[in-house]
Amino acid sequence: MSVLVVGSVAIDTVETPYGSAQAILGGSAVYFSLAASLFAPVRLVGVVGEDFPAEFRQVFRGRPICTAGLVVAPGKTFRWQGRYEGQMNQAETRRVQLNVFENFRPEVPAAYRDTPFVFLANGSPGTQLYVRRQVPGARFVMADTMDLWIETQREELLALMRNVDGLILNDNEARLLSSKDNVLKAARWVCSQGPRCCVIKKAEHGAVLAMDGAVFVLPAYPTEEVVEPTGAGDSFAGGLMGYAASCGDHLTPSALQTAMAWGTVTASFTIEGFGTSRLAAATRADLDARLKAYLRMTHLPAR
Amino acid sequence: MSVLVVGSVAIDTVETPYGSAQAILGGSAVYFSLAASLFAPVRLVGVVGEDFPAEFRQVFRGRPICTAGLVVAPGKTFRWQGRYEGQMNQAETRRVQLNVFENFRPEVPAAYRDTPFVFLANGSPGTQLYVRRQVPGARFVMADTMDLWIETQREELLALMRNVDGLILNDNEARLLSSKDNVLKAARWVCSQGPRCCVIKKAEHGAVLAMDGAVFVLPAYPTEEVVEPTGAGDSFAGGLMGYAASCGDHLTPSALQTAMAWGTVTASFTIEGFGTSRLAAATRADLDARLKAYLRMTHLPAR
Repeated sequence: MSVLVVGSVAIDTVETPYGSAQAILGGSAVYFSLAASLFAPVRLVGVVGEDFPAEFRQVFRGRPICTAGLVVAPGKTFRWQGRYEGQMNQAETRRVQLNVFENFRPEVPAAYRDTPFVFLANGSPGTQLYVRRQVPGARFVMADTMDLWIETQREELLALMRNVDGLILNDNEARLLSSKDNVLKAARWVCSQGPRCCVIKKAEHGAVLAMDGAVFVLPAYPTEEVVEPTGAGDSFAGGLMGYAASCGDHLTPSALQTAMAWGTVTASFTIEGFGTSRLAAATRADLDARLKAYLRMTHLPAR
Repeated sequence: MSVLVVGSVAIDTVETPYGSAQAILGGSAVYFSLAASLFAPVRLVGVVGEDFPAEFRQVFRGRPICTAGLVVAPGKTFRWQGRYEGQMNQAETRRVQLNVFENFRPEVPAAYRDTPFVFLANGSPGTQLYVRRQVPGARFVMADTMDLWIETQREELLALMRNVDGLILNDNEARLLSSKDNVLKAARWVCSQGPRCCVIKKAEHGAVLAMDGAVFVLPAYPTEEVVEPTGAGDSFAGGLMGYAASCGDHLTPSALQTAMAWGTVTASFTIEGFGTSRLAAATRADLDARLKAYLRMTHLPAR
């Protein structure tokens, strides 16, 4: 089954304590697509400006990613500039130029409207809901969000939550949204507001899933060399949704938990290189080997 | 097989955002003993002052904990006062009165010197090494440490590390000790300095084990109601060492990983009540049920 993603396509500039990269390909929809396409066909809806370098499209070659929904609009591509310090847990945004992304009103192409799995990457809840209404028959719709929308568009976000199957967000965002210090309580609170499941990302500390009344916890893949973490969250979501789509329509909590393990190992590639470089080079065989290692490092032997 | 613990016995006063408790039983050796005794017989070496309330000893009743090594010295019992805020991740120490603990020179009773499993709870590395030398035939000796010793007695700590089988410490301490931001690198670095294994505690984010060249990661037990977290680390170590002792002498990485899961569920009881109240009331049946729940929430189904 296919996965549809609606999100940003960006030109990023990132600095870390160990190096920097100027004007490289980025954006939530890009990381998500590269990750999800390791498991299932992906349909991408996004917007770039006239300055978007043709060579950036090469990254989609050889992957089952349809970019017929990637619109070129008059103006410049969304640009983001960020910096990581210390343990590189969190990006400090240095500059944002929304450009063509600012007034992007995503239209899902007619041929995409039957996509069963849909990921609404981080964006304003109003825009996410606008997209959601274009895919009324979707089997599983997951939305990402961020502190900005929680603080400025809470009502719209709550309305969106009533119309999706899952919400994915990081631990600080979950606390902010739910007014609960405890992430499990936060996850359960999210589920009480509409979505069947809530996935809370805790970066190097793993992830939590609340679904159908049950809770699951997963550690992150233990990575020794974090090169540059941009896109890890969207890669995690991409691996998760891609695997879920590859399972078909029977999405049990156990299947979603396994999907999170795939998301975890997918994201572990992303952070090993600048931008999309390592993720784009990863193969399904690489993922299989790493999942095996992850299970070995996390599996508790039966007593 | 038995477990010997040498550490503090204290009178604690703790404040949390949700309540406080004055002059309750505490101390690393107390939490460790209560935890380990759920799995194996425990021998406790420590010191209290003449003011130590007789009723505090009741907590050991009904558990296989020998307190023949608990000395009463002239003076007052070690007192600690701490406060937790927000997510209660870390205690803020408000006041410490070392009292009789200050010049405590632990002597392991002759009858304890053959104990196969030994836990050197947090203390000065010099004192820990002094104890270590009294149990030369021990099969598995684990030491805890803290930032104070890393900063002020580094050489003594490194000497201790060359004489123990395992070092257990929290993530910030591991980074400080190893000068490595990445906890896996930090754990491997510790192992390069002598110990066969290094356990890094990450509080609500779980724990990491490096042993014999391999690495394992475990999430914490997902607790929704954290009442008061004092003693969680020592309870984790107690469950870990108690289970390891109950396995006998064949301590493989896989057995230690399972031991960490038992430590995890043991500590999950400690944080559900003030002081030792919840841990002291826990039974092995409680632990069994919680381990089962933990495995259910963390186990990844086979593909």
